[in-house]
Amino acid sequence: MRFLKPTRVVHAHCDLPCGVYDPAQARIEAESVKAIQEKFQGSSDEEFRTRAIAIKEERADMVKHHLWVLWTDYFKPEHLEKYPELHELFWNATKAAGEAKKSVSPDQGQQLLDLINQIDKIFWDTKKS
Amino acid sequence: MRFLKPTRVVHAHCDLPCGVYDPAQARIEAESVKAIQEKFQGSSDEEFRTRAIAIKEERADMVKHHLWVLWTDYFKPEHLEKYPELHELFWNATKAAGEAKKSVSPDQGQQLLDLINQIDKIFWDTKKS
Amino acid sequence: MRFLKPTRVVHAHCDLPCGVYDPAQARIEAESVKAIQEKFQGSSDEEFRTRAIAIKEERADMVKHHLWVLWTDYFKPEHLEKYPELHELFWNATKAAGEAKKSVSPDQGQQLLDLINQIDKIFWDTKKS
Amino acid sequence: MRFLKPTRVVHAHCDLPCGVYDPAQARIEAESVKAIQEKFQGSSDEEFRTRAIAIKEERADMVKHHLWVLWTDYFKPEHLEKYPELHELFWNATKAAGEAKKSVSPDQGQQLLDLINQIDKIFWDTKKS
Amino acid sequence: MRFLKPTRVVHAHCDLPCGVYDPAQARIEAESVKAIQEKFQGSSDEEFRTRAIAIKEERADMVKHHLWVLWTDYFKPEHLEKYPELHELFWNATKAAGEAKKSVSPDQGQQLLDLINQIDKIFWDTKKS
Amino acid sequence: MRFLKPTRVVHAHCDLPCGVYDPAQARIEAESVKAIQEKFQGSSDEEFRTRAIAIKEERADMVKHHLWVLWTDYFKPEHLEKYPELHELFWNATKAAGEAKKSVSPDQGQQLLDLINQIDKIFWDTKKS
Repeated sequence: MRFLKPTRVVHAHCDLPCGVYDPAQARIEAESVKAIQEKFQGSSDEEFRTRAIAIKEERADMVKHHLWVLWTDYFKPEHLEKYPELHELFWNATKAAGEAKKSVSPDQGQQLLDLINQIDKIFWDTKKS
Repeated sequence: MRFLKPTRVVHAHCDLPCGVYDPAQARIEAESVKAIQEKFQGSSDEEFRTRAIAIKEERADMVKHHLWVLWTDYFKPEHLEKYPELHELFWNATKAAGEAKKSVSPDQGQQLLDLINQIDKIFWDTKKS
Repeated sequence: MRFLKPTRVVHAHCDLPCGVYDPAQARIEAESVKAIQEKFQGSSDEEFRTRAIAIKEERADMVKHHLWVLWTDYFKPEHLEKYPELHELFWNATKAAGEAKKSVSPDQGQQLLDLINQIDKIFWDTKKS
Repeated sequence: MRFLKPTRVVHAHCDLPCGVYDPAQARIEAESVKAIQEKFQGSSDEEFRTRAIAIKEERADMVKHHLWVLWTDYFKPEHLEKYPELHELFWNATKAAGEAKKSVSPDQGQQLLDLINQIDKIFWDTKKS
Repeated sequence: MRFLKPTRVVHAHCDLPCGVYDPAQARIEAESVKAIQEKFQGSSDEEFRTRAIAIKEERADMVKHHLWVLWTDYFKPEHLEKYPELHELFWNATKAAGEAKKSVSPDQGQQLLDLINQIDKIFWDTKKS
Repeated sequence: MRFLKPTRVVHAHCDLPCGVYDPAQARIEAESVKAIQEKFQGSSDEEFRTRAIAIKEERADMVKHHLWVLWTDYFKPEHLEKYPELHELFWNATKAAGEAKKSVSPDQGQQLLDLINQIDKIFWDTKKS
């Protein structure tokens, strides 16, 4: 519901490091990927479909990029100790993002989103502790 | 508080259009800009400061880009009718992002964030109606 | 005619600011967009058409970028006072550039060029005063 | 004089090819390079100078890019026959653009502009014939 | 054979200049171009082919970029004296890379690779002397 | 020695996938990083050093990118089974690339190269089997 909309400070990243990170960046692009997959399914216009495929390629690439940044730059050895599944989780999520370039199925896009949600959950857990 | 953390679908963009937009993209980069300005102030290391200036240049550029996309791609004439201040607000916000390249004052970064928050508020209002 | 070819200094931009701006940058890309739309119409080769669509996507994106830069970085409040239509004009022109990604009609490309010409005219007027 | 301002169609490029080229793209960026070199000389502010150096790096890179595109994509063997100096001219001009990254002297920027003007002259000559 | 695999330091580039160059960068991308052309021929899936065309466009562009950098940044007048064919060779190779965007024939990709191999040979000759 | 110079086909990548990968891409950029660190140490020219820092930022970023691509796109579960250290190795190597942005010590650059060499060794082992 709208009134729960967060006032929390969102987080991004640079290698300074500025210390600002947020899985939302990956998730936003993945939402876009899934929306494109849905629109592709809903259209029979050839030019539209060509554009959808080309644009999805880029969006999925940005998902990969944002996830890689989180993995390498945000997460530290102490996080890995607590969440030993981190490496595998990021590997699967970035592989799913690569798969999203090939797939025009919204189900595939949802699987990508599910993996990002798992990362998001761990991310915010580390912020609490 | 953490348990209020949103489950809402976050939003991004592409010109397909995929219909996914979210002011969080601009805000995340602007948070980064302000954090860099703060770290710049807190350091007297010359190489660090050089890096901070170069990185801030890019981050501020991404703030501009994300804001421009929202202005041109998301907002429609019917929104402008209801929020006639939209043009001026985006103009000021993108100018503030340009100013952030030149400024190393966190106050300036906060002003940029305040403008983005105004945009964010209008954005989510349009989502409700 | 060739002998009228301008010796005037052309103008670009950066956020330093270097003070160099020129609507030609947007216009050149828009010419490219329209030329692609024409070539698309003139070909029935599927691979060529796929390339045309993918390339037009990028060129139109650069039109948007160059226009946004002019709007935010070059134009100042005193210009807006004299040309109150500026916000609306840039909004329409950048929306037309977004539309150009979707359209394969050279007429649409020409409409984009017409809007850029209006901006160009105001730009050079401000240079005279 | 303003009334001589060209109505000629300006020209850009893509590898489709769209057939739109214009040396103005390189020249605009080179003007920016020279303006930055001048502003660098006129300032003793350390942060400004750092930004000037970082931005000049990018602008000079775009000069190189636009020149390379002209050389490879626009010019054809028949042009080379008529203007056998073309290879050497482009080599020198792109090397001067690389040199511009290292130099903060506006004289160097002017030399780059002079080379681009030579290219521009040949370019428009080929358009006449 | 594997045991001949080089331990030599590979080489890249930047305009600092860092002095690190290597034709392998262009060759790797050209290998990718040819592989895409082969995969294109081997598939009748329309979405796959659309992706292949869009991706080939980018890879071929990177071939051009890496070759241009070698030509302008690595090679010096004394090299040209010894290898007067350099300008023509790079011109042909970058034109072939442009052609690779249009062609889906692996033979064309191989021609591009052959030209790069000629450059590679000269490059390593200059390293010996 | 020159006559050992490899005739092997070098390898790159795209997400098609084209199946072309090569750790040389990361290594070339890392060589550049180390060369910049050395040149930084050998110079007391302030503008040169500013450029070195800005350029190193980009080169190190490309190291990260090329490594991430290898990790996600080339390596498969069966490789991980045989080389269980892969995740940790890539994590350390990409973290070292991030560290290289901050460091102006050639020793640090060498550590990055050593990690890439470990990856390179495993990569070519998987090609043999």
